[in-house]
Amino acid sequence: MTLCISLSARPSNNGTRFHNHLYDQLGLNWIYKAFAPTDLAQAIAGVRGLGIRGCAVSMPYKEDVMALVDELDPSAKAIDSVNTIVNTNGHLKAYNTDYTAIEQLLASNAVPTDYSVLVQGAGGMAKATVAALRDAGFTDVTVIARNEDTGRALAEQYGFQWRATLDGGTADLIINVTPIGMAGGPDVDSLSFPEDAIAAAKVVFDVVALPAETPLIKAARSAGKQVITGAEVATIQALEQFVLYTGVRPTDEQVRAAEDFMRAQ
Amino acid sequence: MTLCISLSARPSNNGTRFHNHLYDQLGLNWIYKAFAPTDLAQAIAGVRGLGIRGCAVSMPYKEDVMALVDELDPSAKAIDSVNTIVNTNGHLKAYNTDYTAIEQLLASNAVPTDYSVLVQGAGGMAKATVAALRDAGFTDVTVIARNEDTGRALAEQYGFQWRATLDGGTADLIINVTPIGMAGGPDVDSLSFPEDAIAAAKVVFDVVALPAETPLIKAARSAGKQVITGAEVATIQALEQFVLYTGVRPTDEQVRAAEDFMRAQ
Repeated sequence: MTLCISLSARPSNNGTRFHNHLYDQLGLNWIYKAFAPTDLAQAIAGVRGLGIRGCAVSMPYKEDVMALVDELDPSAKAIDSVNTIVNTNGHLKAYNTDYTAIEQLLASNAVPTDYSVLVQGAGGMAKATVAALRDAGFTDVTVIARNEDTGRALAEQYGFQWRATLDGGTADLIINVTPIGMAGGPDVDSLSFPEDAIAAAKVVFDVVALPAETPLIKAARSAGKQVITGAEVATIQALEQFVLYTGVRPTDEQVRAAEDFMRAQ
Repeated sequence: MTLCISLSARPSNNGTRFHNHLYDQLGLNWIYKAFAPTDLAQAIAGVRGLGIRGCAVSMPYKEDVMALVDELDPSAKAIDSVNTIVNTNGHLKAYNTDYTAIEQLLASNAVPTDYSVLVQGAGGMAKATVAALRDAGFTDVTVIARNEDTGRALAEQYGFQWRATLDGGTADLIINVTPIGMAGGPDVDSLSFPEDAIAAAKVVFDVVALPAETPLIKAARSAGKQVITGAEVATIQALEQFVLYTGVRPTDEQVRAAEDFMRAQ
């Protein structure tokens, strides 16, 4: 039996349910378990010493874990952040499947790279988003973040513009990577972009995964816009972890079943 | 969910089946998984770093692991050998439940401590057996082992006699701790003590657990002797691990059900 785990200060059941459901569907003798490590370095030593095949990495370990692995995939190197480790006979290679997921969604939704883009937020997911935009060939990108230190640094690292506030701005593609609209947060009912920015946009992308139908996504659907949801990011990033760990790519039906099971808790 | 594991160069399903069956019966949200570690020190770091509650230790790690824990229970100290680690908030305390099981069986079978004893074998289980005999108050004990270095050292460490061969010897209590009679071994059909030693004994104890009915146990039962089997040692040592990990002592019926499930593979 092969073990995969997640490391997070506040483990959720999402990964556990998604991966274990796919193991069951595919008849794999694998098991997935979430851990809240007491010590990150010792936990990673345990991944090696116990021969744990795969390890998802969540807050607040995504940066610190970089020093503990043997190799960084370009997806992790592009954003100095790791969310996935694959252990092949003691060699630990780190990936970032959030970056991969955003890259895939920009491509599969055929968003033209000459679109102007507004990215609101400057946290970890903003980095994955901005790096994926640059690597896809987008050039007219503005990062909106109240904190000038992090916002300007993020924008300049990838050759883009920074602004403190939206201030009536519009763009073809608007992307929310703040927690606005997130379940359990203080702004669950708030719209992360104003109505006129939604009206002016061609594509609306919300990285918030829970709920899938944030106020922003609902408003964009009402306005007949093309939407990309955080739930899609969450599923693709988990699926790409699954593929990296097992070497098996499940069918769309299998992924949908695992996704439904994950959300049904 | 709480995880307990085993570390062994050749993991068996026995512990996994026994512990998981008891978790199910008792409605505990625990899981047990067997590992073949690639590096013992890193595996023990992982026990700490991942907050793994319990860790069974098998060949060939029972001695080396002593340097990696924080505290030795007398059961482990008595024989310089660990088969169980309990992790309480990062403090690792090591036990030897083989010793505990043999001690319990000598007491529950009310074997008089003035009985003469022959112990055949000088491996790890011989150490647990000889130490338990000494600590129970037996004084007339002879270790039979062809290898003088290990055999004499074992006997003298606990204040007992050593002989290279049985050589017609008899005793009230005869104990086999060699692999003779063990399933899958070269001597599965061999009798570990000759018929006359069995005839002269009052109690016959075979530490070989698989099969429970070794040639020695069968011959002893035929001769109407009181017997103690290795299967009893195996069950009690696993049960005592379970109690150390969970703090819960299952009923005899629950233990029997877990034992049956373990053997039914």
